[in-house]
Amino acid sequence: MEYSSTHIANAVEQLSSLPTVGKKTALKLALHLLSSDEADVERFAESLMTMRRNVKECARCYNLSDETICQICNDARRDQSRICVVEGVRDVMAIESTGQYRGLYHVLGGVISPLDGIGPNELSIDQLTKRVHDGSVSELIMAVSPTIEGDSTIFYINKLLSDTNIIVSSIARGVSFGNELQYADAMTLGRSIATRTPYDRTT
Amino acid sequence: MEYSSTHIANAVEQLSSLPTVGKKTALKLALHLLSSDEADVERFAESLMTMRRNVKECARCYNLSDETICQICNDARRDQSRICVVEGVRDVMAIESTGQYRGLYHVLGGVISPLDGIGPNELSIDQLTKRVHDGSVSELIMAVSPTIEGDSTIFYINKLLSDTNIIVSSIARGVSFGNELQYADAMTLGRSIATRTPYDRTT
Repeated sequence: MEYSSTHIANAVEQLSSLPTVGKKTALKLALHLLSSDEADVERFAESLMTMRRNVKECARCYNLSDETICQICNDARRDQSRICVVEGVRDVMAIESTGQYRGLYHVLGGVISPLDGIGPNELSIDQLTKRVHDGSVSELIMAVSPTIEGDSTIFYINKLLSDTNIIVSSIARGVSFGNELQYADAMTLGRSIATRTPYDRTT
Repeated sequence: MEYSSTHIANAVEQLSSLPTVGKKTALKLALHLLSSDEADVERFAESLMTMRRNVKECARCYNLSDETICQICNDARRDQSRICVVEGVRDVMAIESTGQYRGLYHVLGGVISPLDGIGPNELSIDQLTKRVHDGSVSELIMAVSPTIEGDSTIFYINKLLSDTNIIVSSIARGVSFGNELQYADAMTLGRSIATRTPYDRTT
């Protein structure tokens, strides 16, 4: 594409460096910004810079935070005895959206994956065991991907804590709500039968 | 979605104001920017503000430009006797990419569409006729959408110039390269037969 303005060419170049944004979409975004009020574009650009400058990792749980210690860690009403261990910050957001969990979190930064060169030292596992040994934690809820790597990570952390009384649990894996049984994969279906739960007659 | 940081929530809000960007994509973009170098994010934001502050409409052809008069209008090697009339700046970019046209442009800002409240006064038609009367223009090449509105616009401009010797032409409409005849719509196919061109035996 030929741009009649070097400023547009520059902005398109920058916008197309974003994931999922190609040159054509970048041009569409640039022209949208050009037709917006100057004050709106300033506010747009400012919000991105402010975010990059001020957002940091929580020193305790490694979730993204505006402060040194994040809102969740600082919330005294939350159950301090449970830590939900996740791979990334998006998992925290997803679990928070459910409104079903009122404990704390710990963001590992990934899962153990030797093929990708990710060992325990690349993740915040040391910090997790330190939190567990220091604090009043009674349960770790492992909410990592249901993959070989995820399972290895659970196994590894469980082993590290074998000399403690901490309960290590894993979120339930099974057939999703709304899914038809015939379309569930054999692995999921088999596991969901093996880990069946008794029907609760009280409700 | 629950964001643990107001800065992230703010950036996601701003990013999702872009066309084609929803909340989920906005979050993906925000997390990408968070994981980028601070200097890169500054450069990114700066490029958008610089573009918005400095890009203006060319005072002659209404194409987007860094200067008062755009590169194309200022290029003395271009054929000053032909003006290609288009609806928007993206059409200029598309035609420039073909490398087939070395004349000037005029960006109308749309086409006449009474249903949308767009009359000749909402477009840069007066400025076009002024350019034509002032200058050494011999041909207007109408490159507008092949719609009723586009055709009305060509008709209107042609009528305005009926007292001059200016040739008003329209870009060829017909079956696209690579398209199969059987899939062309009847209107296009009928018109492409009516406006058939003699086969050039010299090549």
